[in-house]
Amino acid sequence: MDRIEALFAIEQIKQLKARYFECLDGKRWSEWGALFTEDATMDIAGDQPGAGNVVKTAAAITDTVSRLLTGVTSVHHGHMPRIEILSADKATGIWAMEDLLVWAADAPRQGPFSRLHGYGHYHETYARRGEHWRIDSLRLTRLHLELS
Amino acid sequence: MDRIEALFAIEQIKQLKARYFECLDGKRWSEWGALFTEDATMDIAGDQPGAGNVVKTAAAITDTVSRLLTGVTSVHHGHMPRIEILSADKATGIWAMEDLLVWAADAPRQGPFSRLHGYGHYHETYARRGEHWRIDSLRLTRLHLELS
Amino acid sequence: MDRIEALFAIEQIKQLKARYFECLDGKRWSEWGALFTEDATMDIAGDQPGAGNVVKTAAAITDTVSRLLTGVTSVHHGHMPRIEILSADKATGIWAMEDLLVWAADAPRQGPFSRLHGYGHYHETYARRGEHWRIDSLRLTRLHLELS
Repeated sequence: MDRIEALFAIEQIKQLKARYFECLDGKRWSEWGALFTEDATMDIAGDQPGAGNVVKTAAAITDTVSRLLTGVTSVHHGHMPRIEILSADKATGIWAMEDLLVWAADAPRQGPFSRLHGYGHYHETYARRGEHWRIDSLRLTRLHLELS
Repeated sequence: MDRIEALFAIEQIKQLKARYFECLDGKRWSEWGALFTEDATMDIAGDQPGAGNVVKTAAAITDTVSRLLTGVTSVHHGHMPRIEILSADKATGIWAMEDLLVWAADAPRQGPFSRLHGYGHYHETYARRGEHWRIDSLRLTRLHLELS
Repeated sequence: MDRIEALFAIEQIKQLKARYFECLDGKRWSEWGALFTEDATMDIAGDQPGAGNVVKTAAAITDTVSRLLTGVTSVHHGHMPRIEILSADKATGIWAMEDLLVWAADAPRQGPFSRLHGYGHYHETYARRGEHWRIDSLRLTRLHLELS
């Protein structure tokens, strides 16, 4: 792949992740779910109390995350991507992240806290499906987490 | 427009928005005002108490924002742009944002608070004037706002 | 330098700075030190209590920063780069930044605080060494600093 193709793919993946965040915090779940490959995996088990183990398939990821964020105002930001294009349809990426979750008074809780402010990294792989890059796997690690 | 032209325009608009933030928080108002088209519009009415309605023209935008930030230490960050180049001289962009405003003890207040910490999105359009992209419209929406 | 070369160099420098943050917060010090030119300079004297004057050479920078962060959980994020490629092997960059430092109970302190939350800018120059861009100088300025 030449430099133009690689730069173009990197920008496409940055915009894919931008839509990920917009749809996640805007609770546009069907649009959000379509950003993953059908058999994508998500591993946020390490830090999200109650999140359980690795979640498999886009449908299960969407179902799990939409339930976790019911009644929660969320802000997720990504920073400083290191995206590597491995081939015409495979890529990897590491993103720094920050998230702020505020539970409404009557929302189901994940633990004895109503506010979560965290920092960490997404470790991701991407696959191209036709014209579009999709998230094929997502693993979240944490640097710091403040619960109150 | 080919891919190289599009990638170059996207990077130019990212740097335009970077200067927007640098000049805004550095209170370099004449440099900041020149980043807008002459007849640009700004709509921050939805969330900034006291900001009023849509502001029209670069001169009025600069006047309004420089007054709002008098005596205020401000930090504005943009994240995760989704920039779409529509033609050689038109583009749109959505940015996630975070802002922190801290009012000095003797600064004019916008309400019963001396600290604002907010999160939201900029929805923008851009126009090219000669060699330079400029902000043609800016609308701010909020995900979350903390006043204290 | 043509547009493709410039865009490619800008992306390389963004990824260099991404590794800077990953290695800094992950305390991967030998990998971090290798991101600087041998005779690089760092000036964080303006705001980091106890940091002293300008630090010279990659070895001294690594030694100084690794000591400052001993026992400290750190999160550093960069935003909104304005990178200018001056020639095939020289470039400049300005980045907005945010950092959060939390000292462990038994960690050496830099002052009467155990938490630092700051905002500012990195002003940097880069030099190319063979295939790789490296940080040649780094100066940190502050917009706002909260100590508690």
